[in-house]
Amino acid sequence: MPPIAINPERLIQDLHELRRFGTSGNGVIRPAYSDADIAAREWLAARMAQAGLTAVFDPVGNLFGLPPGDGKCLLSGSHSDSQPEGGWLDGAYGVIAALEVARASLEAGGPPVAAVSFQDEEGRFGPLTGSRIWSGALSLAEADSLSDLSGLSFAEARRSMAALSQPDFVSADRFTGFIEAHIEQGPVLDSHNEAIGVVESIVGIRSELFRFSGQQNHAGTTPMALRRDAFQGLIRFADTLNARFADVVTPATVWTIGHVSVHPNAESIVPGRVDFTVQWRDGDDARLDRMADIIHATAEEVAQETDLEVERSNYSGIGATTMDERLRAGIASAARDLAPEKWRQMPSGALHDAANVSRLMPVAMIFVPSIGGVSHDFAEDTAEAHLVLGAEVLAASASALAG
Amino acid sequence: MPPIAINPERLIQDLHELRRFGTSGNGVIRPAYSDADIAAREWLAARMAQAGLTAVFDPVGNLFGLPPGDGKCLLSGSHSDSQPEGGWLDGAYGVIAALEVARASLEAGGPPVAAVSFQDEEGRFGPLTGSRIWSGALSLAEADSLSDLSGLSFAEARRSMAALSQPDFVSADRFTGFIEAHIEQGPVLDSHNEAIGVVESIVGIRSELFRFSGQQNHAGTTPMALRRDAFQGLIRFADTLNARFADVVTPATVWTIGHVSVHPNAESIVPGRVDFTVQWRDGDDARLDRMADIIHATAEEVAQETDLEVERSNYSGIGATTMDERLRAGIASAARDLAPEKWRQMPSGALHDAANVSRLMPVAMIFVPSIGGVSHDFAEDTAEAHLVLGAEVLAASASALAG
Repeated sequence: MPPIAINPERLIQDLHELRRFGTSGNGVIRPAYSDADIAAREWLAARMAQAGLTAVFDPVGNLFGLPPGDGKCLLSGSHSDSQPEGGWLDGAYGVIAALEVARASLEAGGPPVAAVSFQDEEGRFGPLTGSRIWSGALSLAEADSLSDLSGLSFAEARRSMAALSQPDFVSADRFTGFIEAHIEQGPVLDSHNEAIGVVESIVGIRSELFRFSGQQNHAGTTPMALRRDAFQGLIRFADTLNARFADVVTPATVWTIGHVSVHPNAESIVPGRVDFTVQWRDGDDARLDRMADIIHATAEEVAQETDLEVERSNYSGIGATTMDERLRAGIASAARDLAPEKWRQMPSGALHDAANVSRLMPVAMIFVPSIGGVSHDFAEDTAEAHLVLGAEVLAASASALAG
Repeated sequence: MPPIAINPERLIQDLHELRRFGTSGNGVIRPAYSDADIAAREWLAARMAQAGLTAVFDPVGNLFGLPPGDGKCLLSGSHSDSQPEGGWLDGAYGVIAALEVARASLEAGGPPVAAVSFQDEEGRFGPLTGSRIWSGALSLAEADSLSDLSGLSFAEARRSMAALSQPDFVSADRFTGFIEAHIEQGPVLDSHNEAIGVVESIVGIRSELFRFSGQQNHAGTTPMALRRDAFQGLIRFADTLNARFADVVTPATVWTIGHVSVHPNAESIVPGRVDFTVQWRDGDDARLDRMADIIHATAEEVAQETDLEVERSNYSGIGATTMDERLRAGIASAARDLAPEKWRQMPSGALHDAANVSRLMPVAMIFVPSIGGVSHDFAEDTAEAHLVLGAEVLAASASALAG
């Protein structure tokens, strides 16, 4: 079969067409099941049909574009819903790249490729709802009882797409694998002047809520030696943690104290209590476990040394997803050809639909740079040359893997 | 003149009488100019009159009990308003101790003593309003434009006492000095099993608001090395400050990071901004200045090292007040006689009316222990024996200083 050659002008034009739905300034306001999201999906279905793909909405609004026949094929795509107020490429890029590759392949008689736009990746009803349901990680019955922040149930939300949907989910049996193209959403490629990221793993995430409790007191009359200052406990905890992690982490490991709540939070009162989150991410579950041990031990030690009490939630977490070796190698080979010296292997610090789809089939991912590392923001953008190059790498990978 | 001998039963009885006004559980709800506060002041005025003192309300509701004649005399007292929800002894103790000493002296023909209850020490309209106005630190015109948290102006509030008040302020010329008895409101005396504190100074307070600004970012996709995490800046700042202060402070110096506001304060977002207060207190203005220099230099250095921007308010402050040497020595001598081995010289970490009165005359203070160091809380309490002993030290000091 001939290799797939994409049409760069059409790729960029379709990206801008999709951008129209929910446009606000430079960004988009296109949350899952909003009118703009449904209109965008109907436009996508029409584009798929024009390309010769069979457009199918499943019961939750995931949209598949299936090539003719029932032969095995690669699946590619991402999501076309946006953050409540988001950028124009987060998700949309991977959907349009998949559409263009599937379309170009049909035109040239190349290896068949299916395209998909998963629903509610951005978590109106919880993380990655559409691919979670499709992959079997979340049952439809459980999903139907979920609510968004306004109290609307998932059952009601998906009913807004009922007229479009077929009754059954699309079988995964037909797909040989899943490749998701996505913007990086971080600064690594851009800051190194690189064009393509070949994802090695989607990092696992652990998150835990801590409380240090001491004694609330008058900030004038309580000598330092008699204080049980909960915020000073956090200072010592965070400082000790940074030092102890140095021996354990890789440059790709991240940890964040993002939420801090001091009580009573008054200038003249020694803090009696502080609640805070620790979130840590890494591509290696064993490392995540070691970090958890260090975090727990440090919290206990600091609490004892500073005469505080410590409470913690059990951490919630999502395991790391390793990319399929054969798919990853195929993408790396294409990147080596198309972006020599301008690509790297790297972890994905953000979650993606591919993590769910890995329950069903081999998965891999392609990153293109985010200018300034900006995402989840109207200012999110990627150079046009990189948008084209990412789709070319996807096309070359699909060709090579089918060969 | 014979030395003043107080009546312990009457002291304790009057403390409990005053406690009735605004009683709630074990504490009191008697903020300045509330019905309970005004009723308490009217009761106090009647007690003063019964004792042979001339009760005078000044234009802002400060209540003086003046001995007969116009001879020079010592002034003693504190305040009878409470925190919005406060303990029964904060302020009230010093007022009743002064009343008892003035009354006992009149009965025995001892040295004349005047008693005072300043208005709004607890700051409904700003810190120590009544004594601030009487001492000339705040003009009546300026004060009238102040408002409480509900928007009520000071002019309206003091109008509620207009029917009780004389048109003029009480002249300070007649008073040879001011001694304020007060509960410690801290744990030092109680934790050392001591009965009397002879105050050396009322600490100065400096307070400053800081902001570290970095870059808000995705907590998954932003590598540690590329982060500009404002909260991590605060961690380093606080840790460095603790280390640098070690060479500068005394055991009586305190510093507090009491208010912390992280932005956007979300588990999955690298903090882009943190606002926090640093408050520091010491009895020595020169030390407060050195600490300010260290705080400012540390904030600048940490900001530079961590690629953050730092902004700060100019600090607001109240200078330290050194107690008058003669008055302090007189109190120390009385404490040595009446509480041998059970007293100490100590700074006051809290502000008191004496700091304002020092603008007009020599001042000194006597502390009695706070059980468990608790104050500004319904649980505030002091052993009855210590309440009596504090008044005896006040009486002995007044006798000796007049002699």
